[in-house]
Order: sequence, then C-alpha cells, then structure tokens
Amino acid sequence: MENNKLKEITSRDVDFAKWYTDIVRVAHLADYSSVKGCIVIEPNGYAIWERMQEILDKEFKKLGHVNCQMPLLIPENLLKKEGELVNGFAPEVAWVTKGGEKELDERLCIRPTSETLFCDYYSTHLKSYRDLPKLYNQWCNVLRWEKETRPFLRSREFLWQEGHTIHATSEEAKKETDQMMDVYYRFHHDVLAIPSIRGKKTEKEKFAGAEYTLTNEALMYNGVSLQLGTSHYFGQKFSEAYNVTFTNKENKEEYPYQTSWGTTTRMIGGLIMVHSDDYGLVLPPKIAPKQVVIIPIGNDKEIIDLSESIKKQLLDNEISVYIDNSEKSPGFKFADAEVNGIPIRIEIGKRDLEKNMITFVRRDTREKMQVQIDIDIINYTKKMLDTIQNDMYERAKQRRDSLTFTAHNLKEMEDILNKQPGFIHAMWCGDPKCEEKIKEIKGCKSRCILEDKKPIDDFCVCCGKKAKHYVVWGIQY
Amino acid sequence: MENNKLKEITSRDVDFAKWYTDIVRVAHLADYSSVKGCIVIEPNGYAIWERMQEILDKEFKKLGHVNCQMPLLIPENLLKKEGELVNGFAPEVAWVTKGGEKELDERLCIRPTSETLFCDYYSTHLKSYRDLPKLYNQWCNVLRWEKETRPFLRSREFLWQEGHTIHATSEEAKKETDQMMDVYYRFHHDVLAIPSIRGKKTEKEKFAGAEYTLTNEALMYNGVSLQLGTSHYFGQKFSEAYNVTFTNKENKEEYPYQTSWGTTTRMIGGLIMVHSDDYGLVLPPKIAPKQVVIIPIGNDKEIIDLSESIKKQLLDNEISVYIDNSEKSPGFKFADAEVNGIPIRIEIGKRDLEKNMITFVRRDTREKMQVQIDIDIINYTKKMLDTIQNDMYERAKQRRDSLTFTAHNLKEMEDILNKQPGFIHAMWCGDPKCEEKIKEIKGCKSRCILEDKKPIDDFCVCCGKKAKHYVVWGIQY
Repeated sequence: MENNKLKEITSRDVDFAKWYTDIVRVAHLADYSSVKGCIVIEPNGYAIWERMQEILDKEFKKLGHVNCQMPLLIPENLLKKEGELVNGFAPEVAWVTKGGEKELDERLCIRPTSETLFCDYYSTHLKSYRDLPKLYNQWCNVLRWEKETRPFLRSREFLWQEGHTIHATSEEAKKETDQMMDVYYRFHHDVLAIPSIRGKKTEKEKFAGAEYTLTNEALMYNGVSLQLGTSHYFGQKFSEAYNVTFTNKENKEEYPYQTSWGTTTRMIGGLIMVHSDDYGLVLPPKIAPKQVVIIPIGNDKEIIDLSESIKKQLLDNEISVYIDNSEKSPGFKFADAEVNGIPIRIEIGKRDLEKNMITFVRRDTREKMQVQIDIDIINYTKKMLDTIQNDMYERAKQRRDSLTFTAHNLKEMEDILNKQPGFIHAMWCGDPKCEEKIKEIKGCKSRCILEDKKPIDDFCVCCGKKAKHYVVWGIQY
Repeated sequence: MENNKLKEITSRDVDFAKWYTDIVRVAHLADYSSVKGCIVIEPNGYAIWERMQEILDKEFKKLGHVNCQMPLLIPENLLKKEGELVNGFAPEVAWVTKGGEKELDERLCIRPTSETLFCDYYSTHLKSYRDLPKLYNQWCNVLRWEKETRPFLRSREFLWQEGHTIHATSEEAKKETDQMMDVYYRFHHDVLAIPSIRGKKTEKEKFAGAEYTLTNEALMYNGVSLQLGTSHYFGQKFSEAYNVTFTNKENKEEYPYQTSWGTTTRMIGGLIMVHSDDYGLVLPPKIAPKQVVIIPIGNDKEIIDLSESIKKQLLDNEISVYIDNSEKSPGFKFADAEVNGIPIRIEIGKRDLEKNMITFVRRDTREKMQVQIDIDIINYTKKMLDTIQNDMYERAKQRRDSLTFTAHNLKEMEDILNKQPGFIHAMWCGDPKCEEKIKEIKGCKSRCILEDKKPIDDFCVCCGKKAKHYVVWGIQY
C-alpha cells in the first residue's frame, strides 16, 4: 500500500507525544494557529465534535434540559463575588481592558466557566418554587490562559458544554449531579468505547467552589490518565454568594441548590490516545462522522454502478457512507481512509468483480474480507460496525486492566510508576499531606475516590495510618 | 381569557420600540445581562436559533460545505494586514491586553469577523488547485463594540455563522456568492415567511474589503428595513494581503478567489418585527420549536388519555408538540401559549368532549375551530400548519407591498418618509454624494441595487442627472 502518510507518523511505542501530534496533524483534526495556545479545529476534527454534540444534546434534552446562551464576558466585580471560584480561576483568565478604542471603566474577563453568569441570571429570574428546577445548558467556547498547551488536551480556548441547574432541595440537586455523571459514563462506554472509571474527586482536586465533584477518568494507551467529564454539586454556596433565592412552599425565602457539569473537545484527544495506532486515527463507528468509505478501483461502469448502489442501500439504512471518487490512485485512497479512521472500507475492483466478490477492510484490525456481492450488504455492514465497536471497547478495557495496579505502600507505588504509568489502586487516610507526598512520585495525583469498594488494605498507602478512602491514582494530562 | 401577560405588552401601533422589547421579555426570548450591550439568550429564544441552525446547516452541507472552528482571538498584526478591513472594524473591537495576570506583548482582539483567521489558515494549508475549492463555515460568537444596542438587532456579542470559501477561478467564487445568497433568500421566504428582497449593496454600504456585497433586506411591520443576511465576493484582495497562493493546472503560483457569507441571531429580531402582534410572539410553523400545544381542561381520565393519544399521533408524524399539564389554570395556559407564539393550540375540555368535539386555535389569526374528535387529526393539523405558514407569508408580503413606494425626486421621497417609513424605489446616478444627501432625510440609506429591473425613470432621484441604478432605499435598524 502506498502509504506516504505513514512515513509522517512517528511510532506510538517510540514517542507517544510525537505520535499524538502527528495523528492530529496527518488526520487533519486540528492545527496550531497564529494565536499562541489556541488551535484551529479543522473539518475532520470538528465533525467528531458535531457527532458528540448531537448525541449528548439529545440525551440532555430527554432529561428535560434546555439550551441557552450567556455572554462571553464577565465583569470583574461579578467574578469576585464567590471567593473560591475567583482564587481558582483568576490566575488563568484573559482580560478585556479596551473596547472600541476606549479604556473600559471595569475590566471584563473572557469566561473560563459560567457559574457566575448563570447565578446572576437566576438571581433576577427565580421567584417561586414553581419555577424550579431550572435545567439549563449551553454549548460554547471558554478561555483559560494555560501555560503549556497541546491540541484538544489543553488549549487556551476550548469548546464545551456546561450545564447549570438549580433545585428546591439538596436531594434533587445531588440526584442531578449523579444523573449527569451517568450520562457521561454511558457516553464514554457506549459511544466512545472508552472504559472510563467513575468516582469522586478529593477535596484538593475538586472544582473551586464545589461541595463535591464527580468525575470520569480514562486511561490512555500509554497509561496516562485523562479527565473526561465532571459533575459538581454546589449546595447553596453560589446561591448565597450571588443572592439567588426563591419562595418555598411554606412561603419562606430560601437559597436553592445548584449543580454544574461539563464535557469538552478534550474528549477528541481521549479518543485518539485510547484507540488510534501507527497507521492513523481509529474511530469507534458510533462516533465516526463517516462510517464507511467505498473505493471504486477503476472507472468501469459496472464498478461505478455497484458503488452507487451500495452507497444508496447503506444511506437508506442510516449508515453514513461516501464514495471516494477523487482523481487519486487507489493506494492513496486506501491510505487516506486509514489515516482518517473510517471504520470500514469497501474496495470494489474489476478482478474481484469477475469472481462476484468485493472486499471489506476493517480499520481497527486492518483485516481484509472477501465477500460475495449477493450477500445482504446492509446486515453484513451493520454487524461489522457493531463488532468493531465492541472489539474496540474490549481492547481498550484489556489495555486499561493490564495497566491497572494495586499498591500497599509508597515503595510499591514508586516501583510501579518507575516501570510504567497506569491506574494505581491504593488506600488513603484522607490527609492532603499524603496526597502532596504521593505527588512527588512523578507528579502522580489522586484521580478519584471509589466509594462502596471493598478495601484493599486497612492502611494509608503513604503514611500507614488508618485508611479512609479507596483511591485510584495516576499521572495525568 | 385571563391574559395578565397582555397587560405587560405595549401596543404595537402605540410604541413599536417598546412593543418589541416587551415581546422579547414577556416571551422569554432574551434578557439584558450584567455586561453592558450583551444579552442572555434565554431558552425560548435559543430554541429558535437552534431551529435556524439545524435547517441552514443542512442546506450548507448539501452544497458541500464543512464546519470548522477558528480561534476567538486575533493578534493585532494579523488583523492589520488588510487595510480596508481594519479601518472598517478597528473602531469597534474589544482588546484583550492581559492574560493570566501578565501584560501581553501583543494585544489580541476578539473576532468581529474571521476573514483574517481563515486567510491565515488557508495560507499554510493551500498547495495545489487539487485542494480547491475549500468550502468552510463556522457557527460561533463574534463581538463588535456597538454604542447603541437592542436585543437581537444590535448587541455587542452575537451568534452567527460565517462561511469562508476559496476557489480557483473568479467565476466559481462569484457563483458561490450568488448561490449562498439564494440559500438565505429561500430560507427567509420559505421558512421564516419573511418576503425579503435580494440585491447588491452600493460601494458605500458594501462590506469593508469586499469587491461587492449581495444582501437580503426585509421590511418590518413599522416600515423600517432590516438586513438579514449578506454574501461577499472578495476577488483576490484578501488572498493577496495574506499571501494565500496555490499552484494552478499550468503549474504557476496564483492567488485564489474568495467569498464570505453570514447570517446572525438578528433574524430572531426580524421574525418578531414582521409577524408578532399585541398578544405576543407569532412564529411561522416551520421555524417554531414547538408547533402544537395541547391543553387539557380538567383532570378527567378521558381528557388526559385523549391528550396523550393526540400527542403521540402528532409526534409520530414529525409534528413537534407538548402537553401543558402544569398546575396553572387553563386561562393562564392559553395566554402562555399565545405569548410564546405556539402556532396551534388544541383545547380538550369536558363540555366539548360530551359533544365529541375538541377545539383548535390558530395563533396567527386567533381563530377558534371546533372539530369532531373522529376526524383525521394528523392531516387536519398538517394542513392547518401549512395554511398558517402560507397565510403569514402572504400577510407579510401584503404589508411589505403596502409600505413600498416609488419616488422620482427628493420632494417625493421626503413626503413619503414624513408620513411613514418603508421601501422606496428610486433611480440613482451612482454618485456617493447623492447617497449622502438622501441620508439627510431621516437617515434614509440605500438598501440595495436591484439589477435587471426595468427603470422607473431616466434620472437620479437626487441630482436629476442620468440614472445608473435602480435602488431600494429605506430607514434601517
């Protein structure tokens, strides 16, 4: 196969970081821009984000959420109202100080997240318990002035959705926090084929201003962890700070309970690092913007007609498919489909046709299968897409499990991390000082607390005192 | 009908500006925010924008366009490369001068439009004629530091889509400019039921940096014009300024030809000002996020069952419908449906049911129709939605035509505008000085040049010299 693009991809096992940026570039997912730390999301990358939006948005709406749009800018005094939030975000925001050639009286920051704006809105719109719950979400861009950036994983501007809900009772808000984490979890597992784990952040790692934060953490091929979605329970903290109140059933003024939850374009980075290989991008069929490419080899009428007929059959059955009828060589087209991660490639050539055969190629395993043209193409394709989806999930799970370790003391933790990063299960006393100390081992951090898990041990992996929590640790992006 | 909300709506004929902001507020489309000149688009307003996006995006993709995402920020030196564009936009951009507590070496503006960013991207990605055309579009927020703002019509931040395409030949780029104007035109007419007119901007009114600008102009109920979408042909101007080149078939370096085209959330303002009335919002069925509301009067099992059954039938036939089963009174629900512009309201009450009847109410005409429950509800509803859509278009067209005038000289123009704003058809010599002079009459501007129109007269409406162009004039938002 003439895969010139292959030469441009560093091997995953030789230099993972370089391999990652090679995939991003060669599959035309994103490119650097003239603005330091900001990327251009190219059509191939944006199409993945559109699929993510489509699927998640439907789930959100099924659960009663509605979309809205808050302003991009936040006045400084509004941001300052909630102390922890400011301290958490102030060092990394961008400030607008000039508008229309005039110095502004009050500087405005570009939203790093929109809790403040939603609270400000709710404070003037909420009157009675009858208005509750408010289940709002927005799809937008946010900006955080990161020092080190990497396409999709950490960039100054990124796209995300942020849900912000308020409720009459704490129970209801907690249920919402939990429910949205479930939505993310199912999305990662069922659609992205990423076997993320679901838990609670420690006090140190939770969102600034939250009472607690739930998180989904995924393990990349190289054993490094990536946070893929979080859901925060705020209690009444923000509603007090922003004076959001409502009249309850007993006709008394009360502060409502609040949540927020978000996922970002970072998930595209996760998809790459879990599934892709040295031949380019590999996409699970359920998230792939195009699931099948048909490549006619030659211009014979019979070949063209069959290509069109298969395309039509698949399209009518809601399989997204296109014919690559560009002027390029078949070899180039094969490589192109491979680099771009199209789950199934159908090759239709003269020699095959003489034997009444066509060829299916799976992107994930690169297996070639010769198939009689009179089989039920629709069912065959559907089954193959399902198989690819399931196999990709299973392989990712096996990889995750093979990189999941257990440690009983610091020495064991060090030994594991010196060999290979991964998820390390270990008990913890709950003292942030132990978290700090563990961080000294190659920057290893708590990923999440797994509640209701049977303890591995009775003692903290770090200090040896009585253990309180079952924690998964890891090195993070 | 207990329409308390009605009391909050100023009459359209008494104070149009106040009526407009009342509708925006009472129908919960948008609200002012803590950031001067920026609005919160509330769920009811955002749902309209989502419908607009859904329909337009499908059209764009059908024509081969793909979506992407450029950065929010533009470095000052990049913006400065194209002189006319800078001069056009520099006075109204917002500048980021600080990022993460540090003064920036080079200030960054928040995009007022993204020609510069697309050119910058194309300049590094375009190689050969084989890469052309590039048909890119993005849905995003932009910011222009306007002094006077009004929800949807003019706000500092707004949402839009901006298409940016490059082509190997001038003919192809011109065809694209034209084609996208057609897409907008059809969308306004067929979906928004707004009979916009389509023409070319004068030199003075065209987009900064464009060779020419095509525009769709609509007339509001009060006779004031609103620009609803523009499509620009740039020739090679930007590709020269940003050094975008490609190797043509003859193996020579050449500058490609460029277009851009956009529509914004301003269309929501247009929808309101063309169709709504003193009872609230009126939405054409094709753009209404919810087309039908079913209001059960009372809690009888028979009523609830019938409501659910009708809902299911309509949903299965792709009619968007909901049941208002909140705890509010029927009168409140009627008013709510009316204020929110739901095209059809179905009332199901006990007394009607005893006679085997239910009641349909059209929002646009407020007509009530009693209907036998055994009719074909699906067809009846579909037909009524079509009728509403067509009738709304026809009424808007009649209103537009009744406010369209012809002038042969300045005196006539003045007389018309002193009575009533509207579209004024008049000939023009092409001299910008005449445009300036006409503007002195209540700020009246050229809306667009209608090409291929039979001249009304041989002489310029202003100076009396030989006329060159057939122009529609009007006072604008």
